[in-house]
Amino acid sequence: MSTASLPITPDYDAWPVTVDIARVDVEPNLVTLTWDDGRISRYHSIWLRENAADDSTINPATRERILDLSTLPAWPTVSEARIDEAGALALVMAPEGRSLRFHPGWLRAHDYDNTADPRAPLVPIETWTGGADAAPDTLNASGWLDAEPASLDDETILAPALESLLGKGLVRLRGLPTEPGTLAAIAERIGPVRSTNFGTLFDVKAKHDPDSNAYTAIALPPHVDLPTREYHPGLQLLHCLENTVEGGQAVMLDGFAVAEALREQDPEAFATLTRVHWRYANTAKTSDYVWHSPMIVVDDQGNLDEVRIADFLRGPLITDFDLVEPAYRALMALQTLLRDPTFAIRFTYRPGDLVIFDNRRLLHARDAFEGDSGHRWLQGCYLERDEVRSRHRMVERRRRERQL
Amino acid sequence: MSTASLPITPDYDAWPVTVDIARVDVEPNLVTLTWDDGRISRYHSIWLRENAADDSTINPATRERILDLSTLPAWPTVSEARIDEAGALALVMAPEGRSLRFHPGWLRAHDYDNTADPRAPLVPIETWTGGADAAPDTLNASGWLDAEPASLDDETILAPALESLLGKGLVRLRGLPTEPGTLAAIAERIGPVRSTNFGTLFDVKAKHDPDSNAYTAIALPPHVDLPTREYHPGLQLLHCLENTVEGGQAVMLDGFAVAEALREQDPEAFATLTRVHWRYANTAKTSDYVWHSPMIVVDDQGNLDEVRIADFLRGPLITDFDLVEPAYRALMALQTLLRDPTFAIRFTYRPGDLVIFDNRRLLHARDAFEGDSGHRWLQGCYLERDEVRSRHRMVERRRRERQL
Repeated sequence: MSTASLPITPDYDAWPVTVDIARVDVEPNLVTLTWDDGRISRYHSIWLRENAADDSTINPATRERILDLSTLPAWPTVSEARIDEAGALALVMAPEGRSLRFHPGWLRAHDYDNTADPRAPLVPIETWTGGADAAPDTLNASGWLDAEPASLDDETILAPALESLLGKGLVRLRGLPTEPGTLAAIAERIGPVRSTNFGTLFDVKAKHDPDSNAYTAIALPPHVDLPTREYHPGLQLLHCLENTVEGGQAVMLDGFAVAEALREQDPEAFATLTRVHWRYANTAKTSDYVWHSPMIVVDDQGNLDEVRIADFLRGPLITDFDLVEPAYRALMALQTLLRDPTFAIRFTYRPGDLVIFDNRRLLHARDAFEGDSGHRWLQGCYLERDEVRSRHRMVERRRRERQL
Repeated sequence: MSTASLPITPDYDAWPVTVDIARVDVEPNLVTLTWDDGRISRYHSIWLRENAADDSTINPATRERILDLSTLPAWPTVSEARIDEAGALALVMAPEGRSLRFHPGWLRAHDYDNTADPRAPLVPIETWTGGADAAPDTLNASGWLDAEPASLDDETILAPALESLLGKGLVRLRGLPTEPGTLAAIAERIGPVRSTNFGTLFDVKAKHDPDSNAYTAIALPPHVDLPTREYHPGLQLLHCLENTVEGGQAVMLDGFAVAEALREQDPEAFATLTRVHWRYANTAKTSDYVWHSPMIVVDDQGNLDEVRIADFLRGPLITDFDLVEPAYRALMALQTLLRDPTFAIRFTYRPGDLVIFDNRRLLHARDAFEGDSGHRWLQGCYLERDEVRSRHRMVERRRRERQL
């Protein structure tokens, strides 16, 4: 069946027709489709009316909705329904008397009657532990910056990098240039950089008059960055420009693996850490960030959403008096797991390495290094998880377009 | 009593001593203070140990914690407690045998035994409705950019602007220059700008080939910006450079007032909108943002946290089949309230006006304008609520320092 005469869809996406509609049944408030593969999908009249793609519903230039449902004269119902010659669902809706057509590929993709969880991760979450041979998923990205954005390198570098990030929360690109600022060009291939009071690109090296332990040569315990914000950054990128010091190995842990281990071994401690609101505070000379959050955040289905672990950025716990000792007991159970070496990946940054990790899932740490033994210079920046998901959807959309 | 010999506190803040400690009682796991005004405050030994300000606990250069509680040889207990000659709480703690001193102003300010809700807003939330005379809180900001940051203008412009923003979600500055880019200089006085795929500063004017209804001359219904992100921006700033068109009046509504009216009039609709996860989607040519969220978000105490209302950025609802009709009924009850003119403030931008509003609370709308009748040019950008809170805390800290 040709897709040429199918209705446009209410967005810019491509919706291949993988199964045809075999039959349509109708009640005033409901349309029931039977597909060629036997699946049955029900759609409410009100849902169909709001999701039409005609000019009374969306602005054709921006593909954004212009309909306000509450301005309709009455609850919309279906007065006629058929499958038209192009295989689309054709309706006449009362009380407007409006004819509407729906693309079968789009209807199949938005079959809410058979969708288990629209909020499921785009890539299944895969927790991991460390060990002697453990290393981040690594991609050779030399030459990537010379290629056009959205070229085939999307498939060989960006697409697998996004998969690793979404599934494991971590990926390493190798062979990039070591010029300062390279990081910005790479980051923008995913999405806009999130600036903070540490700047847009920040330099991680030992500084005089440091305003953060990160800018010293001391060891850093496993932590996320900026838990003092209501939304701590979703992604952190660290690009190595120089590394000739003794020590200073990078250490990374999957905070979700640690949290799941705690849930298994000490469910009471886990539950406490999902309930007690800790204070995260960075009281600096010219700024004063404070936020209160559970240390482990789960969604309404109990799935891990984020961890906020950073001993050096916790302020004084202010909570119900009777929760204080249980909270500290739970914290210490978690801290003990964090020091268990089976969770950690350890590696040394090579110049030209760019490590990207989910800062709301992974913990990063650093061994102490000898500030006099050489130079260690990383440039860093932040992005949001939104940008990774958007890029991943674009990669998938391009794949669908090639199928059409 | 002189503060000169008091211990340092574990942060950069100033803690005036407003009440002295009259008496201290001690058990191994608990210190009980009786203050001169009769208040009794209990502090757990584990809490005191973690919040000490000595060099074994915090890095004196960065004021960040270096202690990992789980590395202590045992649960810390108090073996001796007294009020010293400077009025500080002096402890000896086992098993370390460590002497620690606590600043009485800091202890009083972190008295969790008598703190109702550490997460209470910094400024009480004040909902508002519109009407003929209603206008945003307005401050004359001419000359502000010529003043030094952190000068007395903090008190005359920034401090009241932050109060209005935190309490009412809206403030208008008048008399600013009309050069493009002025906005960035103003925004940075509050905090770092949040970039999006619309750029760092975006221009709101009618565009050819618009990728958003905002960039057309059509009317926009009440909405928040970027609900398609996991975290939609906390603050939006709009700076008027030119406005000579017919029409195009700005319309603003307090989304919290609308939501509270819905909670009062139709509690079932309100509850539905706090539970159903709507899909917010912006499927554009080169990006694809999607997020699922309730339309009204309340915290664990039922207080309003944010609204996500933007008809033109909602994707198809994908939820439990049986929730679809109740969800649309609730949506239409909300939409009807949104069109009730009693909620709206209407005003015309003057060149040099800068309107700042909480984009997770307020809805903004726009009448259609005649694209040929003149020029309408606003520059906009986003910040996070974190930045407003941080700046507000800094203003308060400076006030406390002047009291010392």
